[in-house]
Amino acid sequence: MSEPMFDRIALIGIGLIGSSLARVIAAKGLSRHVAIATRSVETLRRAEELQLGHSYYTDPAEAVQNADLVIVSVPVGSSAAVAEAIAPALKPGAILTDVGSTKASVIAQMSPFVPEGVHFIPGHPLAGTEKSGPDAGFADLFVNRWCIFTPLPDTDPAALEKLSGFWRRCGSNIDVMDAAHHDKVLAIVSHLPHIIAYNIVGTADDLQNVSKTEVIKYAASGFRDFTRLAASDPTMWRDVCLHNSEAILEMLARFSEDLAALQRAIRWGDGDKLFELFTHTRGVRRSIIEAGQDVDAPDFGRHGIEQQPSK
Amino acid sequence: MSEPMFDRIALIGIGLIGSSLARVIAAKGLSRHVAIATRSVETLRRAEELQLGHSYYTDPAEAVQNADLVIVSVPVGSSAAVAEAIAPALKPGAILTDVGSTKASVIAQMSPFVPEGVHFIPGHPLAGTEKSGPDAGFADLFVNRWCIFTPLPDTDPAALEKLSGFWRRCGSNIDVMDAAHHDKVLAIVSHLPHIIAYNIVGTADDLQNVSKTEVIKYAASGFRDFTRLAASDPTMWRDVCLHNSEAILEMLARFSEDLAALQRAIRWGDGDKLFELFTHTRGVRRSIIEAGQDVDAPDFGRHGIEQQPSK
Repeated sequence: MSEPMFDRIALIGIGLIGSSLARVIAAKGLSRHVAIATRSVETLRRAEELQLGHSYYTDPAEAVQNADLVIVSVPVGSSAAVAEAIAPALKPGAILTDVGSTKASVIAQMSPFVPEGVHFIPGHPLAGTEKSGPDAGFADLFVNRWCIFTPLPDTDPAALEKLSGFWRRCGSNIDVMDAAHHDKVLAIVSHLPHIIAYNIVGTADDLQNVSKTEVIKYAASGFRDFTRLAASDPTMWRDVCLHNSEAILEMLARFSEDLAALQRAIRWGDGDKLFELFTHTRGVRRSIIEAGQDVDAPDFGRHGIEQQPSK
Repeated sequence: MSEPMFDRIALIGIGLIGSSLARVIAAKGLSRHVAIATRSVETLRRAEELQLGHSYYTDPAEAVQNADLVIVSVPVGSSAAVAEAIAPALKPGAILTDVGSTKASVIAQMSPFVPEGVHFIPGHPLAGTEKSGPDAGFADLFVNRWCIFTPLPDTDPAALEKLSGFWRRCGSNIDVMDAAHHDKVLAIVSHLPHIIAYNIVGTADDLQNVSKTEVIKYAASGFRDFTRLAASDPTMWRDVCLHNSEAILEMLARFSEDLAALQRAIRWGDGDKLFELFTHTRGVRRSIIEAGQDVDAPDFGRHGIEQQPSK
């Protein structure tokens, strides 16, 4: 194990992302000290039981004292409150970053509080599962996933390079883009899929002519794939919807327009049009598998690990 | 291994479902002889290379001669043509069934051709993956999955019981309902999810302000889940859309109505409404896992089998 990159890392928020960071930092020896802060006393106690760090705080300002790197991993709607709370305690020269799924809003919320001399670099690791809380994290969550930075015009290149090095050690690939573009890209690859999944699960659960029992029993015929995204953390996703609404509404409009055309093809019995779309989409999946961003195993490889009959 | 249930089973169509049946029949010794028919010479040769049966035909009428059980596993739009072709060669007392995803249409297509004395029992095993063709099948595809029968008013109970016994030996649970209800249930649990998945993948691939490369690279943030269903067999899904259009259009209308409400909540910044929906849907997934119809492992258990970085 090489020399630690940091003397003290402060993790503000210790859910799925925060606790995965704690685990990879420990596994790779990336910091001499890990300070953990979360508002919830219960969550903090659980983090301590799991031995995720070296010191534990309910006050984030205490956690960030003397920290070289501060990583804020909270629902994006809490960004301003956290920034305001920690700002006076941040060490000059420290790197302050976050992991939020929307970037323009986080920048607008946090920037006003960041003191002179602190390097604020907004970031977003594209990694996660449908589970949440400190028990849900694992050290290789970020392996082969992308981490996107949306630096500000005055971001210090050396600080950006140091933070990039940290995320590379966590297993990530690095990309840099502006916040507005990030928010559009994520609206289509992440936010719209989650919203559609939440919506279809809601629709299925709310029918008169098909029972809830039937929906559950027969879920393996397609529906279950959507329920995974729709089981994601509600607070996180409420905040994403509220804080990237413009880009999301644009993507929803495109989706609905395409769906209207597809619906019309079904109504008119236009088999050629349906066949053309259904053939075209196959290639997209092939490309994702070739890019190492999904497994090629049928059914996401579920069959190997499937539960046995319980009847 | 116990006594075979049948002397001769004819499999008409040897794709994912047909070839999985061939494999489980062989593994469990359910028939003395398995006759395989498919229109494509190439597919038939592949089935023979894989040793999926005992005799091979491009003419389905030859395959069904003397068969006690005939299982038609073709895209639902081909049901009438297959029924017409095999009808004269069916043995009196034989059981004729299918595996199609729509039932009212299959009954309308096949019934007129079924000769007196042949037991026609429409069926639908709710099992599959996004892969297709004779190489894609596997013997435990049907384990702990539901097989739904939609018998006709004059269906012989003894024949239904014999066919149910066959599917139980394949690992399935059995349900019986009328065809119209089946088509409504499947429209929500299977057809709508596939159509929505095809649609969102189409939308993402057709944007001006986000490149195809970005969609592929960042797919792990949610989008990739939809690409699995959208990689399913285009011919099969074209036919499902054409042959269950009424129920599908009804479900699409419900889905769009719900989506409009969700869109409005996003536009108005109604966090409470979003939080309520996003919390509610979590319970649906829990129920599916408890029913043994999906794995509880995060990310469908993909992390364990994920490809290593290829950069």
